[in-house]
Amino acid sequence: MSTQNETTTLKNSKELFVKMVVSNWELQNQRLNGWLAQLSDERLLEPVAEGKNRAVYLLGHLIAVNDGMISLLGLGERLYPELDEIFVKNPDRTFDEIPTVADLKTKWANLNAVLTRYFTELDADEWFGKHNAVSQENFAREPHRNKLNILINRTNHEAYHLGQLIFLKA
Amino acid sequence: MSTQNETTTLKNSKELFVKMVVSNWELQNQRLNGWLAQLSDERLLEPVAEGKNRAVYLLGHLIAVNDGMISLLGLGERLYPELDEIFVKNPDRTFDEIPTVADLKTKWANLNAVLTRYFTELDADEWFGKHNAVSQENFAREPHRNKLNILINRTNHEAYHLGQLIFLKA
Repeated sequence: MSTQNETTTLKNSKELFVKMVVSNWELQNQRLNGWLAQLSDERLLEPVAEGKNRAVYLLGHLIAVNDGMISLLGLGERLYPELDEIFVKNPDRTFDEIPTVADLKTKWANLNAVLTRYFTELDADEWFGKHNAVSQENFAREPHRNKLNILINRTNHEAYHLGQLIFLKA
Repeated sequence: MSTQNETTTLKNSKELFVKMVVSNWELQNQRLNGWLAQLSDERLLEPVAEGKNRAVYLLGHLIAVNDGMISLLGLGERLYPELDEIFVKNPDRTFDEIPTVADLKTKWANLNAVLTRYFTELDADEWFGKHNAVSQENFAREPHRNKLNILINRTNHEAYHLGQLIFLKA
C-alpha cells in the first residue's frame, strides 16, 4: 500500500469520525425541534416539572451553551453572548424580563443553521486541533481535548436537557 | 514520510477517536454514580417527577439498554437479557414484581465493569467495524454505522435519562 493511499485512508477515517459526531448532534437537534413544534409558546413558559426550570429557560440555556461553541472552536464571533447572563450565569427566574419564546425559537433555528454551516466548512484535520479552552502544553499531553470532543460533550449536554424538556407534553 | 509511519498515524488516530468516545461514556457513568451514591434505595422507588417514570425504572432501563451493547457489538453474551421485558418492552408500573433497587445497583456496577473490560480489549479497527444490527450491504454504503457509533448513541441515551434522574434530589 502506498503512502498516498494511507494518507487518503487517514483523511477518510477522520472525515468518517467527524460525520459520526456531527450526525449525532444533528439527531439531538431533530428530536428537540420535533418536540418544540408540538408546543405553544405559552406552554414553554411552564416549568418542565414541579419546582424545576421552565422550558423557556432550558431552551435559552441550550442556545447560549451551543452558541459558546463558536468562540470555543475558533469559528468566529458568537451570535448571542448576551444570553449567558440570563441563561447560564444565573438560575431560572432571576430576571423578570427575559427574551420571548418566539425570539428564542428564532435564535435557536438561526444558531443551528450557522453552526451547521461552520461545521461543514471545518476541515477534518481542524476538528482534531485544539479548542480555545486548552493550552498548547496540555493539548500536547491530552490530544483528545480537541474541537470534536467539545461537540461530543455539547451533544450529551443537549441530550441531558432534552430528557427534561420532553416532560412537558403537548 | 514512510508507509509505516502513516499506518502508525492512522492507528493512533483511530485509538484517539475511541478514547474520546469511551471517555465521554465514562463521564456520564461517573455523573450517574455520583447521583446514585447520594440517594437511599427507598428514594429510588419514587417517580422523578409527578406522573413520570420511577427512578428505579430508569435505572433498570439504562442497565437493559447498555447491556444490549454486548450482543450488538458482538462482545459476548448479554448479562441481563431478562431485564428487557420489564424495563424496555413495557412501561413503568406494568409489573408488580420488579428487581430490588439493591439488586439493580449491583447489576449496574457489574455491567459497567464488564463493559469497560470489553471496551479496553476491543481493537481500534474493530470499533470501526459494523455492528450486528446493520447488514453488510448497508454498512458498505453507510460506514458510519459502526460499533463506535453505537456507543456515541448509547452515551446520549444515558445523558438523556440522567437529566431526568437528577430531578430526584437527595
